[in-house]
Amino acid sequence: MKIFGNPMSTCTRRVVMALHEKQAKFELGMIDFTKGEHKGAENLARQPFGQIPSLTDGDFTLFESRAMIRYIDETVPGQSLTPKDPKAHALMEQWISVEMEQFNPGAAGIVGQEIFAPMMGGKTDAAKADEAKKKLATVLPVLDKHLAKGPHFCGDQFTLADVCYMPYTAYALNTSAKELILSHTHFAAWWNRVSERAAWKATTAK
Amino acid sequence: MKIFGNPMSTCTRRVVMALHEKQAKFELGMIDFTKGEHKGAENLARQPFGQIPSLTDGDFTLFESRAMIRYIDETVPGQSLTPKDPKAHALMEQWISVEMEQFNPGAAGIVGQEIFAPMMGGKTDAAKADEAKKKLATVLPVLDKHLAKGPHFCGDQFTLADVCYMPYTAYALNTSAKELILSHTHFAAWWNRVSERAAWKATTAK
Repeated sequence: MKIFGNPMSTCTRRVVMALHEKQAKFELGMIDFTKGEHKGAENLARQPFGQIPSLTDGDFTLFESRAMIRYIDETVPGQSLTPKDPKAHALMEQWISVEMEQFNPGAAGIVGQEIFAPMMGGKTDAAKADEAKKKLATVLPVLDKHLAKGPHFCGDQFTLADVCYMPYTAYALNTSAKELILSHTHFAAWWNRVSERAAWKATTAK
Repeated sequence: MKIFGNPMSTCTRRVVMALHEKQAKFELGMIDFTKGEHKGAENLARQPFGQIPSLTDGDFTLFESRAMIRYIDETVPGQSLTPKDPKAHALMEQWISVEMEQFNPGAAGIVGQEIFAPMMGGKTDAAKADEAKKKLATVLPVLDKHLAKGPHFCGDQFTLADVCYMPYTAYALNTSAKELILSHTHFAAWWNRVSERAAWKATTAK
């Protein structure tokens, strides 16, 4: 399996984390977005919106990180990252949807404004950063209340739901939202727990 | 199974469509959002963000429409709406993610501005409506090119991916984006095909 992405990209990290959890062998095809390679013809042939990541597995091509991690979990042998019980499985999907629809608008918003904008030579828009933090402040209490009930989003099992939340949480802890995030003590305890995993250390190694 | 939602709501329709496709028996618990019932204590106990829909199945509670349709398909007997082959399954997930991340910002944007805002006593923001149409104009060519290859998002099989795109497409065809949408002839042919399904007629019956 070959992943086309960039180790700095949150969505690439989501996929690489799943691969390391499965102890899968894979190759990383580097896409340098500072050079605009994601908008080049080769990447567009795999990812029609000109984004990263995408993957190839033989002659099969797939994009969208949350589809890729489900495919990796289904096809790579080893410890499953998806609950077998239909109700637990449904709750994993619920928390993945919450990540996309509720958590990311806030987390990706603040990370985009305070980390990626300056990195790409732009400026932080203070009003947008503030709006993102306000959104995050409405979502974190729900996640915190849920994570008070168990060590992971699906209780004892570490699943794809945990994988989904990790990349933006890591970056958001390096923004002005850090204190807001850490004031949610069950969410903070979850982060301390999952970020100690060997797979995460491998995902974020220099 | 009991669905708490509103027959006018796009996300409720996504779930009701899946239930009709499975020929499932269900009860609809009406949430009148014009009266703010979605923000009431009863709904918040099921859906912590105060949105619709949610479901109960015995003592099990679930929210997020795309998690709900996967649960319905997995647990209700009958014709499957999910491909069995891992690659086909992964592509279904890819197109569901595209719906959430690419199609909805445009489609829900224009529907929100031109249909739901006036319905709730507000006004259409012309700049936001225009922005939504511009977004839709970047996404529809990708969907159109894909739907040129087969009758549904996953080829011959009607799946949860088709279900996901239907509710906002139906409403968007009643906005100023109608001509833009119908100019994508493969997408338009897909819509004509799927909107003829008995389950869709039951979903949108008065």
